[in-house]
Amino acid sequence: MIPITFLSDYGHRDEFAGVCRAVIARIAPGARVVDLTHGIEPGAIRQGALALANALPYAAPGVHLAVVDPGVGSERRPVAVRTGEDRLLVGPDNGLLAPALERLGGAAEAVDLSTSPFRLEPLSATFHGRDLFAPVAARLALDATLGEAGEPIDPGSLTTLELPTPDIEANRLVAHVVHLDRYGNATLDATVGDLDAGPLAGAKAVEVSVGRATAPARLGRAFADVEPGELLLYEDSSRTLALAVNQGSAAELFGLEPDLEVVLAPGL
Amino acid sequence: MIPITFLSDYGHRDEFAGVCRAVIARIAPGARVVDLTHGIEPGAIRQGALALANALPYAAPGVHLAVVDPGVGSERRPVAVRTGEDRLLVGPDNGLLAPALERLGGAAEAVDLSTSPFRLEPLSATFHGRDLFAPVAARLALDATLGEAGEPIDPGSLTTLELPTPDIEANRLVAHVVHLDRYGNATLDATVGDLDAGPLAGAKAVEVSVGRATAPARLGRAFADVEPGELLLYEDSSRTLALAVNQGSAAELFGLEPDLEVVLAPGL
Amino acid sequence: MIPITFLSDYGHRDEFAGVCRAVIARIAPGARVVDLTHGIEPGAIRQGALALANALPYAAPGVHLAVVDPGVGSERRPVAVRTGEDRLLVGPDNGLLAPALERLGGAAEAVDLSTSPFRLEPLSATFHGRDLFAPVAARLALDATLGEAGEPIDPGSLTTLELPTPDIEANRLVAHVVHLDRYGNATLDATVGDLDAGPLAGAKAVEVSVGRATAPARLGRAFADVEPGELLLYEDSSRTLALAVNQGSAAELFGLEPDLEVVLAPGL
Repeated sequence: MIPITFLSDYGHRDEFAGVCRAVIARIAPGARVVDLTHGIEPGAIRQGALALANALPYAAPGVHLAVVDPGVGSERRPVAVRTGEDRLLVGPDNGLLAPALERLGGAAEAVDLSTSPFRLEPLSATFHGRDLFAPVAARLALDATLGEAGEPIDPGSLTTLELPTPDIEANRLVAHVVHLDRYGNATLDATVGDLDAGPLAGAKAVEVSVGRATAPARLGRAFADVEPGELLLYEDSSRTLALAVNQGSAAELFGLEPDLEVVLAPGL
Repeated sequence: MIPITFLSDYGHRDEFAGVCRAVIARIAPGARVVDLTHGIEPGAIRQGALALANALPYAAPGVHLAVVDPGVGSERRPVAVRTGEDRLLVGPDNGLLAPALERLGGAAEAVDLSTSPFRLEPLSATFHGRDLFAPVAARLALDATLGEAGEPIDPGSLTTLELPTPDIEANRLVAHVVHLDRYGNATLDATVGDLDAGPLAGAKAVEVSVGRATAPARLGRAFADVEPGELLLYEDSSRTLALAVNQGSAAELFGLEPDLEVVLAPGL
Repeated sequence: MIPITFLSDYGHRDEFAGVCRAVIARIAPGARVVDLTHGIEPGAIRQGALALANALPYAAPGVHLAVVDPGVGSERRPVAVRTGEDRLLVGPDNGLLAPALERLGGAAEAVDLSTSPFRLEPLSATFHGRDLFAPVAARLALDATLGEAGEPIDPGSLTTLELPTPDIEANRLVAHVVHLDRYGNATLDATVGDLDAGPLAGAKAVEVSVGRATAPARLGRAFADVEPGELLLYEDSSRTLALAVNQGSAAELFGLEPDLEVVLAPGL
């Protein structure tokens, strides 16, 4: 049976993710469920979307359940989507699935799950993970076709997600914090390509400014390429540009938060 | 093999839940373990009991391991209980299992596990999850009968759990916070039936008071039924009355904590 | 197929642990993965090492993946090690594996994974969990021998881990906090044997001092052996000496942190 991956913002305090797992196990007892994470910040669609897009290329093709759904019970559509790579993504149509779809061959076929015959009754208005998305994911893994799960919709009508982009200026690169991980490493909205295309091409040292704070950083590959406590600018494991402090926290050093502007200029 | 669900207050920082999973996998390699949650607050029997009772009706019948056990090693009994619906609950007899038992057909048969032949030796005094409950759950899933797991006790002697109840007064409903989830939604000890039975019957708008703070709330089904930042009174996915702020936190709005009094009066 | 246990400091907020699970499931779809914990503090090698050593004796022999790897991408070696008990440990050679190896029969055979044919390409410099350790663990569980996974190295060359030790003085035992769990219980670097060998032999009551704070403690087996709010000195489930407050937190009582000195003297 094809495996099911599962990502959500349900957290680890409540039984929300667990009851979805229980629903899946009840419907598809043999299906393997791989939890990607349930620690997405409440309602943080962009964070969830990027985590999903980063993780899925490493997962076996299968059913990919994702729920970050602040608009649950409203007119936002619940959907299931087949990608060009023949993966099945299940979740709310609020942009959460968009970057992953793009990386996995694009949306080839999509259905609206609003009246899916696989939903649990009574369908709650606030917990579609349990009552709609998990049952659909389980049935898709078990035996059902996409067409049986819902009503066909135009894949081109799926909600997209706007992501921040860096500004490459004459003498600096203005990037933004996209994500802060538990180590305090900060993913930016720039790539090594952006570095090479702008005023930082060939630089080994960079001056990093956030608000009024400034610190020198070195370009490197791994945390230990700089001394403990020093700042590193590197290409992270998702191939985006990121800031880290060796044995420390870049987030703490600058008081970083998502969307904050990070200015990179050539250093000495 | 029948599946095992697992709920505890062991948290995610330590290896406590993990070592229980390892013990189960060692004894019953083929048993599927579905983690419901391990994020119950330390020693919070009532929180664990309600999470368990909310989750289990969605799980396949099986072995249901639950450990929130502040009295571990004292005279509180470790038990395993068969319900009227033929499910097997395993955990401490401190009220943790009571609401779930009630929802699942009542306790039909029970055993005291104190001298269970399935316990690991030496039995620690402070980690019965690892040394007693997990091995018993694994053996029940694998091959053992309830009678083999422990000594029969009167199911009527199992510890019950007192839950708060709302007061329906002439012109208001006095409820209490039962649980705050990670989104800041507050579950109350009242139901839609309590609303309909009292002075709030038919109301669309409600005035919510907590201590000296007051805010208007609207009755609705889903978060998006009110504007962002506004207060919603709704029937949650466990069919209890709850308070939420759309794209915000009801817990933060009122500084809510479990057991705090929440007064609902007809609004304008 | 032999099971895989998995411990890391990847936390639960990001998809790091999840993507490793996905990599394993892709390579070895039938392998059971038992998560021990991913809540080790970032880079806390000693905490991870002790959690691993405490958990593994309870796990079935198999592949034991452990990643707390602040030196990822530097010259620290990635390794896989067969123990005298025929278990396979996979992780960075930074001391993380050392206490577990010692408890599980010692290192009998070891390989350097730096150029393992099982690594994913391109190998990132900062996420060897995903690109190196998880694939190796999966292949070892699936079909590969240790020799196929890497280049042989001298097991005697593996990095060891220095752990704190208590000082047994004429009239007191000077111990140190090794770990604080989620309940606020404090594991010390001393054993019951250390108590019996020193000035506390036979004592039932102990005076505990941390900095200028002092509190009486009683020796007992389980939390309920002292009144709620009182301090207990006990042998914990890992057979080390520990401090707890019944229905409270020893960590809060004394403001404990890892490595802090805890002085135990005979009480009244």
